[in-house]
Amino acid sequence: MLKEFAKAAPPDKEELRAELDRAKDQLAGYQMKIKEAKLPVMVIIEGWGAAGKGSIIGKVIRNIDPRFFKVVPMAEPTEREKRYPFLYRYMLEIPEAGKFVFFDTYWMQEVTEGVLTGKIDEKLYKQRISSINTAERSLHDNGYLIMKFFFHISRKEQKKRIDALAADKDTKWRVSETDVMQNRNYDRTLEVYDRYLEDTNRSVAPWYIIDAGDRKWAELQVLRFLNQGIDTALKNQALAAPILQNTFPLEPVPKLADISLADKTMTEEEYRTELKKLQKELGELHNRLYRLRIPVIIGYEGWDAAGKGGNIKRIAAALDPRGYEVHPIASPEPHEKARHFLWRFWNRLPKDGHIAIFDRTWYGRVMVERLEGFCSENDWQRAYNEINEFENELHSWGAVVIKFWVQIDNETQLKRFQDRQNTPEKQWKITDEDWRNREKWPQYEDAVNEMLQKTNTSFAPWYILESVDKKYARIKALKIVIREIRKACREKEKNL
Amino acid sequence: MLKEFAKAAPPDKEELRAELDRAKDQLAGYQMKIKEAKLPVMVIIEGWGAAGKGSIIGKVIRNIDPRFFKVVPMAEPTEREKRYPFLYRYMLEIPEAGKFVFFDTYWMQEVTEGVLTGKIDEKLYKQRISSINTAERSLHDNGYLIMKFFFHISRKEQKKRIDALAADKDTKWRVSETDVMQNRNYDRTLEVYDRYLEDTNRSVAPWYIIDAGDRKWAELQVLRFLNQGIDTALKNQALAAPILQNTFPLEPVPKLADISLADKTMTEEEYRTELKKLQKELGELHNRLYRLRIPVIIGYEGWDAAGKGGNIKRIAAALDPRGYEVHPIASPEPHEKARHFLWRFWNRLPKDGHIAIFDRTWYGRVMVERLEGFCSENDWQRAYNEINEFENELHSWGAVVIKFWVQIDNETQLKRFQDRQNTPEKQWKITDEDWRNREKWPQYEDAVNEMLQKTNTSFAPWYILESVDKKYARIKALKIVIREIRKACREKEKNL
Repeated sequence: MLKEFAKAAPPDKEELRAELDRAKDQLAGYQMKIKEAKLPVMVIIEGWGAAGKGSIIGKVIRNIDPRFFKVVPMAEPTEREKRYPFLYRYMLEIPEAGKFVFFDTYWMQEVTEGVLTGKIDEKLYKQRISSINTAERSLHDNGYLIMKFFFHISRKEQKKRIDALAADKDTKWRVSETDVMQNRNYDRTLEVYDRYLEDTNRSVAPWYIIDAGDRKWAELQVLRFLNQGIDTALKNQALAAPILQNTFPLEPVPKLADISLADKTMTEEEYRTELKKLQKELGELHNRLYRLRIPVIIGYEGWDAAGKGGNIKRIAAALDPRGYEVHPIASPEPHEKARHFLWRFWNRLPKDGHIAIFDRTWYGRVMVERLEGFCSENDWQRAYNEINEFENELHSWGAVVIKFWVQIDNETQLKRFQDRQNTPEKQWKITDEDWRNREKWPQYEDAVNEMLQKTNTSFAPWYILESVDKKYARIKALKIVIREIRKACREKEKNL
Repeated sequence: MLKEFAKAAPPDKEELRAELDRAKDQLAGYQMKIKEAKLPVMVIIEGWGAAGKGSIIGKVIRNIDPRFFKVVPMAEPTEREKRYPFLYRYMLEIPEAGKFVFFDTYWMQEVTEGVLTGKIDEKLYKQRISSINTAERSLHDNGYLIMKFFFHISRKEQKKRIDALAADKDTKWRVSETDVMQNRNYDRTLEVYDRYLEDTNRSVAPWYIIDAGDRKWAELQVLRFLNQGIDTALKNQALAAPILQNTFPLEPVPKLADISLADKTMTEEEYRTELKKLQKELGELHNRLYRLRIPVIIGYEGWDAAGKGGNIKRIAAALDPRGYEVHPIASPEPHEKARHFLWRFWNRLPKDGHIAIFDRTWYGRVMVERLEGFCSENDWQRAYNEINEFENELHSWGAVVIKFWVQIDNETQLKRFQDRQNTPEKQWKITDEDWRNREKWPQYEDAVNEMLQKTNTSFAPWYILESVDKKYARIKALKIVIREIRKACREKEKNL
């Protein structure tokens, strides 16, 4: 794209100034409309060193009330950030509905830099491109406006600017070694940039190349495209995105009605013996995975009163408290609701070597949010694929992803509800909402069956925990967690 | 995509039959909604030989009233079709608003076949992919639903089906040599298919891979995806598509107000001499470009009464009537209005070696349609880029594309209007609408300036014909046409 990039002629000075004023007013006018329409806007500025990326952001934000935007400079990933998936630190910074975030470089920078320094080989490059295209598409489908600008200057212009900065003792510090190296290797860098732009140019998040030779003209170009993009997005309020086909390997999974429960029991004695043995084993494994830096994500879903809490407790009891966290997931907070539905889970990922246990998960999208109408039909229909993509991202990062469905039958739930109601110290555990949800058992059962069937991937499979006898369910969970972590440890050791 | 394709398990027989019935009813129910919403639906079936592409179409259409669909089998291009651009025969068949077209293979087949037989090299392959992605995006942006299905069977299954067909004397004829060859070279073919699917999988027109091992199950999969796609598209009635950046090389162009007209005159005598000489030259060139099979497209735009008609006549007079056509472009007919705005121009392209002269053109989109509100703002804003893409497609095909803007000033128009009004034999040439349009001169002037500036590409440039003195404009047009055709002939001869 850069190679064929044809500069448009800027308007003459006077006209430029007049149009710039109009464009600024227009952007200022969009603020409230963006807020009302709850449109989240990502403005991504990439480009050559010394092309004026930072200064353009400074100019554009002058037109916006500080309550409505944030500027996020993306530096090199810190040591801590490197312990998370590639997309993690970027996803954390996405704007909330009705606001702007201006990114001074985003995921392009890290990828192209990696290619240029040889840290990213062809295979990893393709993986990154796929992660980025998938993430941008998913953000778009969930209502984000993504405006990507590439600031383009010639080798000569860059040299001139670097030299000018270096000559002044007040600005000398702004010239980085990377900038100098980049100018020396301009052609090679251009190749890498150009390929990246081509590979990530999609109409859900297209590239706009900015001729950054003149600063005022660059500002006008950015404002023009930005205003146009906002205008288009505002027209697309209730956009429905296509439901893409699942392209991940799915394993068969039984229907809930076909799962036999009565025979899944064990004696108290067996349970005690097994529990002790397995918890000891898991405790030892926890050290090993910490050393090997393997992240583990365990998600629990299941019927109310199925015994999720007690089951989680038996896993957690075996773990070193410094190495795990349990995340109880309720309805999203306002600042969470205002972002992509997976954002609050990105935000709760474990560092590598750590374990995160989710008491209810991102599957709320295709269960409660679906059935209670908290999202549109298009939203939850798309979510199966979006969830598979999310879990695939975790898997590629090296995480062990285990999903439990804790299963009981309708009568067992009734008995447990009644027991809670009649036992004073358990009454806090039962609410009117539980009773209301219980009435929707058949709808939930259909939704759960569809969910299990559409998200039972080979890399993040579902495990059914038959929990009419809670002891049985706890032992089964422990065994699965141990087996999967052990498998991951062995594989990682083999590859060391 | 094919390599990682994970078959989903079909429902059991009874459930499948029940769901199939529901899916058929649903599709039948969509018919009227599609008609009301004026949604054009393209259903494209690609896939392996003997995978059941034809038979699935036969089944799906049983649910639709024959007035609402058409089935288009795309065979090899005929010798005649080969004289048009690659996209031509496909674009001609796109559905009109509110109707289905089912394509038994579309542009995928021609490209993958070309790669497999070596007729399409890497460079041409990339060009084809770019043409296809651009066309699919443009169709989507203009409101088309594009559902692309790939029918997938294993090598073994294909062999089994081919053998079964060949064994029966009634079906033997259905086994083509290509099918047999394909089965022998299954792995190589898979590579080519897979790459094509990856390269053209965009969310504006995503691929759906159909496990075609079982016919009933294949039918259900198609109906499921098709119904879902229709449902999503119906929700997106007033979709606004992003305005993409122009990525084609633009040349500077003067503003209309800066074009001097008074000095562009010639004497009657000069005119006579020149005209005779130039027409003779053009006549000879016409033979040469016919022999070299160069297509020529000349478009005329300009103010009412600027002298387009007379100018065209002077060009046409020099040409062999068997080798050119003049297309007067008025408002679109209903069947034209019901399709992509460029369809009626695709439909009027010249064969190679021929000349098409358009008296008014596809630029109506960004002039009259814009100013009279015949299309949405998003439509005409997108159209500059869509037009550049269209002309680039013509250029890549090898066409000479010449665009004339016939320029007069406001007073000259008034004088000519009055003259027409006052001269009985000219009165038919002046209507109330002409006077109404004249009142909008300033708005038109702005629109024309924007149009010239945004579509003056190096491969399809605008030429201003100063036409206060019509003689001058005619001679200038002839000279430009001669020069451009001569240049194209020389280049083509060099490369022979």
